Amino acid sequence: MGTHSNRRDGTSLMALAQYFDDFDVGQVFQSAEYQITGEEIAAFARQYDPQPMHTDTDFARRTEFGGLIASGFHTAAVTMRLFVMSDASTAQGTLGVGIDRLRWRAPVRSGDRLRAMFTIETLAPSRRRPGWGTVGTHARARNQNNVEVFDALMLALVPGRDWAATRG
Amino acid sequence: MGTHSNRRDGTSLMALAQYFDDFDVGQVFQSAEYQITGEEIAAFARQYDPQPMHTDTDFARRTEFGGLIASGFHTAAVTMRLFVMSDASTAQGTLGVGIDRLRWRAPVRSGDRLRAMFTIETLAPSRRRPGWGTVGTHARARNQNNVEVFDALMLALVPGRDWAATRG
Repeated sequence: MGTHSNRRDGTSLMALAQYFDDFDVGQVFQSAEYQITGEEIAAFARQYDPQPMHTDTDFARRTEFGGLIASGFHTAAVTMRLFVMSDASTAQGTLGVGIDRLRWRAPVRSGDRLRAMFTIETLAPSRRRPGWGTVGTHARARNQNNVEVFDALMLALVPGRDWAATRG
Repeated sequence: MGTHSNRRDGTSLMALAQYFDDFDVGQVFQSAEYQITGEEIAAFARQYDPQPMHTDTDFARRTEFGGLIASGFHTAAVTMRLFVMSDASTAQGTLGVGIDRLRWRAPVRSGDRLRAMFTIETLAPSRRRPGWGTVGTHARARNQNNVEVFDALMLALVPGRDWAATRG
């Protein structure tokens, strides 16, 4: 695969990274946009976070939020989608290790349009997986009013070029 | 509401906490069980983490995992469901603040049955919301082989009894 032919959402001018070796600390990737609906908020929450501020429109209207708000785990999942569809995600795939210091900074509401910015913060060879590297990516998502709703440092394992070459 | 009449999954012998005041550091809550299917793994991932080790059975069979594995965000969402259905969640609802140090410790596969244990680790009055408190809950999920798959310190805001009383 070429490194210039496979951008997936058309929003970034950077080529798609293939391997751990292709990242630099300080690189910034912008995501596409994702609009969240009330139906999606309620459907996610019925399955994974069945609390009435996420599932019951009438109840939610009487809270301080004045309407349905998304489960924080839903906001995290939407940010992951924006990550996978962006050039911050490698063609080789990303194995999640964990998250350091996630914060939900503001509610996400029905109709919100989210965009995320991903900044490469740390790069280190993996001790556990020789030939792979650990990428620390600072993910920040904002709504259409430019209010930050989500902020997290995600850690993931990505294969290196030499490791991949020995796999053919 | 009584404090003994509304346990939601029948697995815990503890009464359902109503307010911040009802928690103690060191309290442990056991969740019910949740079985995850390959269909659910793929459906979640098509929407939120479209990488082939989560969505493509044939691709996944050829990886080191030997089959579909759940998106880490899916495992987190399932753990949230186990939390909400357990007595670690209050009748008043839980407003997520964030997560400190989340780790995905082992893959979650089709057919796995997950259970979580929630330990109250920190309790502090909220500065931002007078009358509310911040509860730090250590969430650990294990599969049917007793292998830990998920480990996170979750921070949430819960109303205090006095605050709730002034709201009628």
